[in-house]
Amino acid sequence: MSHRGAFSVVEMQGLILALDYGGTQLSAAIVAPGARQWLDLARVPSPPAKDARYDYDTMLALARKLLNDRKPGAIGVSFGGPVDAARGLVLLSHHVPAWENVPLRDRLQKEFGVPVSIENDANVAALGECKFGAGQGCGSLLYVTVSTGVGGGWVLDGRICHGADSMAGEIGHTIGKPPANLETRDRLPLCPCGRYGCVEALACGPAIARDARQRLIAEPNRGAKLRALAQGNLDAVSAETVSRAASDGDELALEVLHDAAHALGFGIGTAVTLINPERVAIGGGVSKSGESWWRAVRESARANTLPQMRVDIVPAALGDDAPLWGAVALAQVPMR
Amino acid sequence: MSHRGAFSVVEMQGLILALDYGGTQLSAAIVAPGARQWLDLARVPSPPAKDARYDYDTMLALARKLLNDRKPGAIGVSFGGPVDAARGLVLLSHHVPAWENVPLRDRLQKEFGVPVSIENDANVAALGECKFGAGQGCGSLLYVTVSTGVGGGWVLDGRICHGADSMAGEIGHTIGKPPANLETRDRLPLCPCGRYGCVEALACGPAIARDARQRLIAEPNRGAKLRALAQGNLDAVSAETVSRAASDGDELALEVLHDAAHALGFGIGTAVTLINPERVAIGGGVSKSGESWWRAVRESARANTLPQMRVDIVPAALGDDAPLWGAVALAQVPMR
Repeated sequence: MSHRGAFSVVEMQGLILALDYGGTQLSAAIVAPGARQWLDLARVPSPPAKDARYDYDTMLALARKLLNDRKPGAIGVSFGGPVDAARGLVLLSHHVPAWENVPLRDRLQKEFGVPVSIENDANVAALGECKFGAGQGCGSLLYVTVSTGVGGGWVLDGRICHGADSMAGEIGHTIGKPPANLETRDRLPLCPCGRYGCVEALACGPAIARDARQRLIAEPNRGAKLRALAQGNLDAVSAETVSRAASDGDELALEVLHDAAHALGFGIGTAVTLINPERVAIGGGVSKSGESWWRAVRESARANTLPQMRVDIVPAALGDDAPLWGAVALAQVPMR
Repeated sequence: MSHRGAFSVVEMQGLILALDYGGTQLSAAIVAPGARQWLDLARVPSPPAKDARYDYDTMLALARKLLNDRKPGAIGVSFGGPVDAARGLVLLSHHVPAWENVPLRDRLQKEFGVPVSIENDANVAALGECKFGAGQGCGSLLYVTVSTGVGGGWVLDGRICHGADSMAGEIGHTIGKPPANLETRDRLPLCPCGRYGCVEALACGPAIARDARQRLIAEPNRGAKLRALAQGNLDAVSAETVSRAASDGDELALEVLHDAAHALGFGIGTAVTLINPERVAIGGGVSKSGESWWRAVRESARANTLPQMRVDIVPAALGDDAPLWGAVALAQVPMR
């Protein structure tokens, strides 16, 4: 069953202000209700040496500059870390200190005197893709981002599905290539979450780079093109060099990429079996790894779900702007 | 985030009629709106030698007898097979012929002149448990039934999540113990869906019986209590005899049960990671396998999800009546 057009857009007076507290940069943008282009957008770096107060003040200055004395109608906020959306709390930033339990929603509401909604960045990017990007017209969308980690968010009937602990959609921590038995599990990569063989530990950018380095050491006569790209320096091997070498036909690089894509596809197939979304959109740097990567993801996902279920996997459309557009959608959608 | 009390109960005039077209029996019940006890309930067998027309006519006679000339206010229907809920179609019965593409909702609506809703039995049992059983007060519930197969249904904000192909919640066809590589996959049990190592192929009743038989053959000096229960006849080994032998301390039976429970728990842990439900309720015959089975399910589920996610797994509360109570809830909840 599909559920189209379930967005109930709040009648909005004035501009929508979208804020994105990312891991490495702060972005703010303003847009007129219903518009599909920014009126104005600004980004500044968020140096890891700074803290939450610095981020807050810098973002505030950015927003005030964009608004230029105009009062926004509503504010949507994307935050790069765990968020309690119902209470409007930032729980933690993995990059910047002093963000623990910050009531960001209430502070911004007090600051601007208008309704504010905040969400975790994967959730809000999912909403952005569903409303303005690769999931337009879909009643449900699973959004997966593959970069330094593997994150996921999931939109049903135009709203983010949070789950009971605000953690639904954690596809990165489903198993991507499970052990046949407990005795062999430590041959699989250890995930930051403490388990072995998670999709994240097999499919994210650093996992690709690590796997490539291990194979280059183990197989000294292979991977010539990858070695050349890294100028013989193993530390210079990254997911990007692997993907470039693979595009250039380097077989070792192709194998590395294929295995990572296969693990991701396995996780997506599992998610499809449980959630049965109308579409799956994949974003993040690793999704730019080329056609062989996409083919392996799609084949693996298809093989790991039921034949009656659709497997429609497409590239995310909004790139780095997904959280900002999601914040716009967030500002316009009443919370579930 | 939790979403309590999201049921919007339709103001109902007259009785609610609940119908359950099960695989082996037909059940009908009537209840007053808001009541928690049946006014009347009747069941008759549905012989596999008969067809859809027989089931339809028999159920109609059952309902008319219960109603005794009263007109119901609304009708909810549970059907033991794939259903297109949005179009009110039965797609197929795995037990009874001629149910292909039957517009059951419209026929019953014409028959009684009142609104009718129909759903697949796992979905409707999930709704019943959420509204009247083990999931009362929960904003989201994953319901898993483990008997001749492993089925699942999933309720969010008081409504069944169908998925884009009406197939969400198919936990039985996530992987329960995946192969380390493709070369070893055919050492895992083949699932009716055509894949290897599905939860259903490892955890359902027939899978438990099959595994026990294989071990009894391979290990002739073990399983004395299980052999005694089956009176030396391997064909008499069932999930129930395995569970009885296990309760009696038979180590082979305990191992069989533990492995099956472990696979189910693995699948539940995966589902929790993706869906993050407030609670998981398990029903079906195999869920009566005793404390060691429950312990293994819970431990395995806990080990296969993130520490920040709740893992609240409880026995289903409504037993065989879950689909009927779900049909009552269905009759009272507007469709999403």
